[in-house]
Amino acid sequence: MCYTKDIMERIDDLQYKGLKIIQNTDGFCFGVDSVLLTEFAKDMKKHSSIVDLGTGTGIIGILLSKKVEASKIIGVEVQKDVAQMAKRSIELNNLQNVMSIVNEDVQNLSLEKNSFDYVVTNPPYKKKGTGIINKEDKQIISRHETTVELDGWIKVASSLLKDNGAIYMVHRPERLNEIIEILRKYRLEPKRIRFVYPKIDKDANLVLIKAVKYANSFLKVEKPLIIYKNDGSYTDEILKIYEEGK
Amino acid sequence: MCYTKDIMERIDDLQYKGLKIIQNTDGFCFGVDSVLLTEFAKDMKKHSSIVDLGTGTGIIGILLSKKVEASKIIGVEVQKDVAQMAKRSIELNNLQNVMSIVNEDVQNLSLEKNSFDYVVTNPPYKKKGTGIINKEDKQIISRHETTVELDGWIKVASSLLKDNGAIYMVHRPERLNEIIEILRKYRLEPKRIRFVYPKIDKDANLVLIKAVKYANSFLKVEKPLIIYKNDGSYTDEILKIYEEGK
Repeated sequence: MCYTKDIMERIDDLQYKGLKIIQNTDGFCFGVDSVLLTEFAKDMKKHSSIVDLGTGTGIIGILLSKKVEASKIIGVEVQKDVAQMAKRSIELNNLQNVMSIVNEDVQNLSLEKNSFDYVVTNPPYKKKGTGIINKEDKQIISRHETTVELDGWIKVASSLLKDNGAIYMVHRPERLNEIIEILRKYRLEPKRIRFVYPKIDKDANLVLIKAVKYANSFLKVEKPLIIYKNDGSYTDEILKIYEEGK
Repeated sequence: MCYTKDIMERIDDLQYKGLKIIQNTDGFCFGVDSVLLTEFAKDMKKHSSIVDLGTGTGIIGILLSKKVEASKIIGVEVQKDVAQMAKRSIELNNLQNVMSIVNEDVQNLSLEKNSFDYVVTNPPYKKKGTGIINKEDKQIISRHETTVELDGWIKVASSLLKDNGAIYMVHRPERLNEIIEILRKYRLEPKRIRFVYPKIDKDANLVLIKAVKYANSFLKVEKPLIIYKNDGSYTDEILKIYEEGK
């Protein structure tokens, strides 16, 4: 996560099995949402093939390389300089034989259909024309879906997945209604959902969703994921996530 | 709630402002889900008109008469003996001028369309043909939707509501996907959702939903509602619900 504003690019320790990430503090940095998504995705089977749509810095794929020992990870990133930064992070972690980056718009992908075990995505959170538009183009593209809408991403995700393959997504609870509707439209049935609450007495600010291609309808809403105790320190669950990676 | 199995009918104290309820322990008794739904519905404006679809013992309407000071409550119940029991509970609480019972199938209602502020419902939880079917007919009807499907209930609810009127529902999280899709199909947009977790480290076993007719899409997932502490005693929030009614 980013703590300084005056550095253009730097290397951060992911605090997980020695993994590192190159980030550009002027563009965007990974957040706790990506870390929580990879934790949520730990029910993935080992040695699987994964596509990360909108990979950004590559954070999700890089973490999954160790967390679920994936054998093939493809990160898709439309912004050329961000894609190059992700490539350098892959090299920095010696993951060239596992992970690669495709510098392409999600909508123009030529990856093989019905061939991947999993898709992961931390998509842009805002609808077109809503919310505060940031000044920087990179932030506009990553946060406001000016290039692609959620519907398009989920359509692509569904087309890439094998039967019974799964998509893992982190998003904002305020858009849950549409997310569920769009997932089902493309035959991705939500099977596990977990809400993230900043504190036990606060509204949820993130939602983690696993949806399975062609699955039947039966949803499990898992125990609440709470980030901070009332005294402002991390909960035991959050501490454990960081502990086990050391 | 029911504690004995050997009594056919008896009067229970609702522990809320002196309200009482007649229940038949051989049929079904009200559960914590109805109490939580009326708590969740406390953002209703006062002196409103409410329809309770599938009112059963009348518990939800009876509680709302005091909790939100509703001026008109109509409970709809298809089973004749249950409807009569609800009527007697209304008389027992001297609520005849506020609440009435319609002994009719939800699908055959002749109530005025687009005329109610709110619909509340604790509908049958199971899909037709799924789950364990209980031996007693009453339990089959109330729990297994052998008479009407969720889609039909929500369609009726939407038709009864004024523009910007709201439906409040309690249901099982495993059916959330369909619930959201059906609500939106009938132009009822989920605006508030709260998940009920038996304990902080358990999956949700109930979901409370408020959906507003013709509203825009923006969902608030409220703080988790947790029933028991780890030592098995009630949480402060649950204790408060019962305390304030005394």
